[in-house]
Order: sequence, then structure tokens, then C-alpha cells
Amino acid sequence: MRILSGIQPSGSLHIGNYFGMMKPMISYLERAELFVFIVNLHALTTVNDSEELKKNTLKAAVDFLALGLEPEKCVFWVQSDVLEVTELTWILSGVTSMGLLERCHSYKDKIAKGIVPNHGLFAYPVLMAADIILYQSNIIPVGKDQKQHVEVARDIALRFNHIFGETFVIPEPEINEDLAVVPGIDGQKMSKSYNNAIDIFTDRETLNKTIMRVVTDSTPVNEPKNPDTCNLFALYRLFAGPDKIDDLRARYLAPGLKYAEVKKELAQLIWDFFGEHREKHAELMKKQDIIRDILRDGANKARAIARETMDLVRDRVGINY
Amino acid sequence: MRILSGIQPSGSLHIGNYFGMMKPMISYLERAELFVFIVNLHALTTVNDSEELKKNTLKAAVDFLALGLEPEKCVFWVQSDVLEVTELTWILSGVTSMGLLERCHSYKDKIAKGIVPNHGLFAYPVLMAADIILYQSNIIPVGKDQKQHVEVARDIALRFNHIFGETFVIPEPEINEDLAVVPGIDGQKMSKSYNNAIDIFTDRETLNKTIMRVVTDSTPVNEPKNPDTCNLFALYRLFAGPDKIDDLRARYLAPGLKYAEVKKELAQLIWDFFGEHREKHAELMKKQDIIRDILRDGANKARAIARETMDLVRDRVGINY
Repeated sequence: MRILSGIQPSGSLHIGNYFGMMKPMISYLERAELFVFIVNLHALTTVNDSEELKKNTLKAAVDFLALGLEPEKCVFWVQSDVLEVTELTWILSGVTSMGLLERCHSYKDKIAKGIVPNHGLFAYPVLMAADIILYQSNIIPVGKDQKQHVEVARDIALRFNHIFGETFVIPEPEINEDLAVVPGIDGQKMSKSYNNAIDIFTDRETLNKTIMRVVTDSTPVNEPKNPDTCNLFALYRLFAGPDKIDDLRARYLAPGLKYAEVKKELAQLIWDFFGEHREKHAELMKKQDIIRDILRDGANKARAIARETMDLVRDRVGINY
Repeated sequence: MRILSGIQPSGSLHIGNYFGMMKPMISYLERAELFVFIVNLHALTTVNDSEELKKNTLKAAVDFLALGLEPEKCVFWVQSDVLEVTELTWILSGVTSMGLLERCHSYKDKIAKGIVPNHGLFAYPVLMAADIILYQSNIIPVGKDQKQHVEVARDIALRFNHIFGETFVIPEPEINEDLAVVPGIDGQKMSKSYNNAIDIFTDRETLNKTIMRVVTDSTPVNEPKNPDTCNLFALYRLFAGPDKIDDLRARYLAPGLKYAEVKKELAQLIWDFFGEHREKHAELMKKQDIIRDILRDGANKARAIARETMDLVRDRVGINY
């Protein structure tokens, strides 16, 4: 079984990404072949700054490797390094109805927001379908907002198989309902776009300052506090062991707890939690050539699968004269 | 200077193609580098029959080689053999506004005819832009109905250069106004879709039968006839030398001319005109491996240029991390 997951090269990872994507990704390794790629071709539909894209592509690779993605245990590459994905995108365009793309929420949402649409934004789901079925992927872990794109990939793959004969594995979306929701410092879901995120690879001072901004209620120091409605407590329990959590709960329920002290402790916990990852991150940042080699090796592995698929596809559609 | 021209792999060539496309193409060789490719990726937007596409791709190659396209004097390849063209298509999608594509006549015409549009038909002009600018082409000879596609390619190239810096040569369409209009057997412009074409590489019997179907007026044998309004005369003069043309004109102006006799003479003229080409055609049809080698060599030459362009493009947009 093959699980495929794309990573946006869009800047810093926060702890919401860690618990929502990175941890489950590493758990997939136990049950399947894991294919992970950095989606720089998708980024081109919105990014016009080449230096930023180059930097963020390498940064995404370093982040994931530092957080424990072991390249020898999975296939890890940069999307644009396998040219076949754009070839398949074109071929799939011929079996993709305009109506299917016009119905995609993500495109309609962008238009509703007043974004002047380019063709890349419209054709995005076709590239995503090619990403998925080129590697004959079985399972695509997605958030609810991405589920439609996997459904589009299924539709396109089914239609191709129907017209040209069995060629593609039909992928299944997998929505992980059990994931801990990670609150941001304002209590909403943590998200870069809400500006409420706690970055993983940041310096100690910035981390402290961010944690000090975690919103708490105004219960006076000498009154008991409610851990179950407290955003600070919810963050704390992500990083502490059961004993420490029980201990903090008791302190909440007794008078005298100062939120500022809990914040200091939380900052320390987060700092320690990512300690090894931070060291590895710093080390990898100095070895960008090694990162490039890892990504090129990954692309070679991915391309071998892609070529197998494309040999079949080219024959099915008749471009291998 | 580089001239680029695409060939549809859509079956038999007729004499209208010869005078409208093949003859000018060979004349380009005198003034420019000539790039000619068989557009099998475009064909995928309308063709679902792989065996037909494979057969027609090789057939188009054999037809053009038999008619005098010398592969050592130009670059001659099959579109799908240079993967970079689909990569560039994706990249250009990010700088192509939806409005530009929605305004394309060929798409609007297809919808008006009730064709259920697939995404390939809509995205067609982006692939065509990539075809043109990937090879840094200067001149694109087109019919009037294709002029808009070159204008779209210009718009996209200008926009890319504006956003990312000078990268692409801006192509110019060239409409050859001097071309002889070749009438079909019914007197309309010769076109496969009007079912009025005279195929070049057909057997003698079929050629005779087709020519016998050339429409003429009902002037009785014993009256003079008007060569200047006669479709048969217009076809005759494409193949005869000046003396023979003058001679036939005189026979038209005197009583006694039988159209059936002129038809017999015309069939003979056409048969002789393409005699050497027909021999070469028969010979090449037996050597399909040699055709494949010629096309692969051509693809290698084309790919070398494509890679130069794409090295620059990848750097400009930031996918070469």
C-alpha cells in the first residue's frame, strides 16, 4: 500500500503542523510505503518570487528531515524534479470535463475573494490528480478542505480507465478524525494565516515572546482556575507527560496559580521537546548540498515509478508511436 | 532566425496541403532554421483511439519526408518526445489569465457547435504557446484561423518576461497571402472536412475516380467553354507547365472540348507530378524503424534547445532550488 502526501514550500512550520501532519506521517511508515513531495509546481500558481520559492523549498526539506522524516525509509522529493507529472497533467486534461474543474471549491473561493484567476489556479486539481495517480497511490491523507481534490483525482482516474482500459489505481482520501486540534495563541485553530502560530524552529527569545502572548482569562491569582477551558493548559498538555499534566491540573484547581509562570514552563517544555530536532535542523542548514543530494536521490526513486506508469499511459493513449 | 510549424497527425495529405503548407515549408529552409513537429499532444484533446494516433503519427512523418522535407536540413520531431513542453505549459499557466483563454475563438466555436468541452480543449492555447516559445521561435506561419493562437503565445511570453525578466523571444505570426487557393473537387476550398479533397498518396484507381467527380458546368461539347471560371482548369494549372496551360486554354475556347478528357489528362498529370514522392513514400513505409530513428534524432536536437530554455525558465521562476 502506498500513501502519498504533499508539502507546501510556504515558510516556517508551526507546532500545529507537527501534530497535524508530521506525527501522523511518521506513523504511516509502519503500515505503508510513504511518498512525500514538496509541491513547488503548485506554488507557482500564487508565488512570483523565485528566490523565496527556492529558499522555501530547501527549508521545507530541512524542516521535515530535522523533524524525523527518514529519507531512506520513504520516497522524498521535489515535485518539479519529475517532469513526467506535467506530461500526465496534459494527458489527463483531455479526459477532464470543464464542469468538474468549475465545480471545485478552492477555485470558486478564490474568485469569491476577488483574486484575478490565472489558468494555473483553475487547472490545479488536474496537476494534483497527476501527482496522485502517477505514483499509483492508494491513500491520500487530507484535511476536510482538500477532500474534493482527491475526489476529482478519483473521477479523472476512473474516466481514464474507462476510456483507455485499466491503468491507474483509484486513490482513497483518508481524513484523520482523531488528530488533536492544536489551538493557536488566541485559542482559534493554529494557522499561519490567523497569525496565531508557534513556530517550531525559532530562537528562544522569539519563542518566549510568542508564548507570553497566549491568551488566558482574567481570573485573579488567588482564585482557582479551570484547566479544561484554558488554551494555555491545552498547549501544555501536548508537550508534558501524564504526571506533569496531573500536577498542573492540581495547581489550576488551587488558588495561587500565575499564568505567567505556566507560560514560562510551557516555553521551556517546547524548547526541550524540539531540542534534538533543533540541533539536527541547525546542522542540516549548514549542509544544503547534502539536502540537495537527498532530494535528487528521492526524485530518482520517484521517477522510476513515474516512468513505469507513463510507459503504460503513453501506450494507452497512443503517443508512443 | 527560427521558423516553427506544427503538423496535425490527422490522416492523409491532400494536394491543398501540398501547395498550402509543404511547398512554403521547403522554401523556408532557404531563409531560416526550420523546426517542424507532429502535434500528437494536441491531438489528444479530440482523439481517443490510440492505434489511430500511433498510425497517423508515423504516417504524417512518412508523408512529409516523402514530399521532400529533408531531416538533416531542419529539426523534425514528435511533440510528445520533448517532455519539457508540458513542464513549460504548466509554468505558463501561472501567468495566463483565465480571460485570455475564455476569449479564444477556437474554444468558443467548439462550444457553439455543442461539443462538450474537456479541459484540454480549453488549455490548448497554453500548450501551443509553450510549443512556440520553448524553442525561442521567431516566425510562426499560420492560416488566418490560427493567428489568434500566436497572439496568445505573444501575450503569455510578454507577461512572463515582464514578471520574471527577459526570457523568451516574442514570436511573430506570418500569414502567407500569396498562396494559391486550391479548390476542392466541388469548387470550394479543398479541405478534408468538406470531403472534397484529392489525396496525394492514393492508388491510381482512387485518384481517377476522385478526379472524375470534379464538378464542371453543363456547357455542351460543341460550344466554347470558360477556363477562368472552371474548377477543373484551376486544378490543371497547378500541375501543368505554361505551354500545356496555354494549350488547354485554347482548347477551352474552341468547340469540341470534352471535360472527361481533361479529367483523364489531369489525373495523369497529378500521378506523374507525385511520381518520385510516391516511390519514396512506398519505400519509407517499409522502413518504419528508420522513420522512428529520424524522429528520435530530431527530438534530441529539439530537446537540446528546450533544455537551454528550461534551465533559464526554472531559474527565473525558482523551481531549481
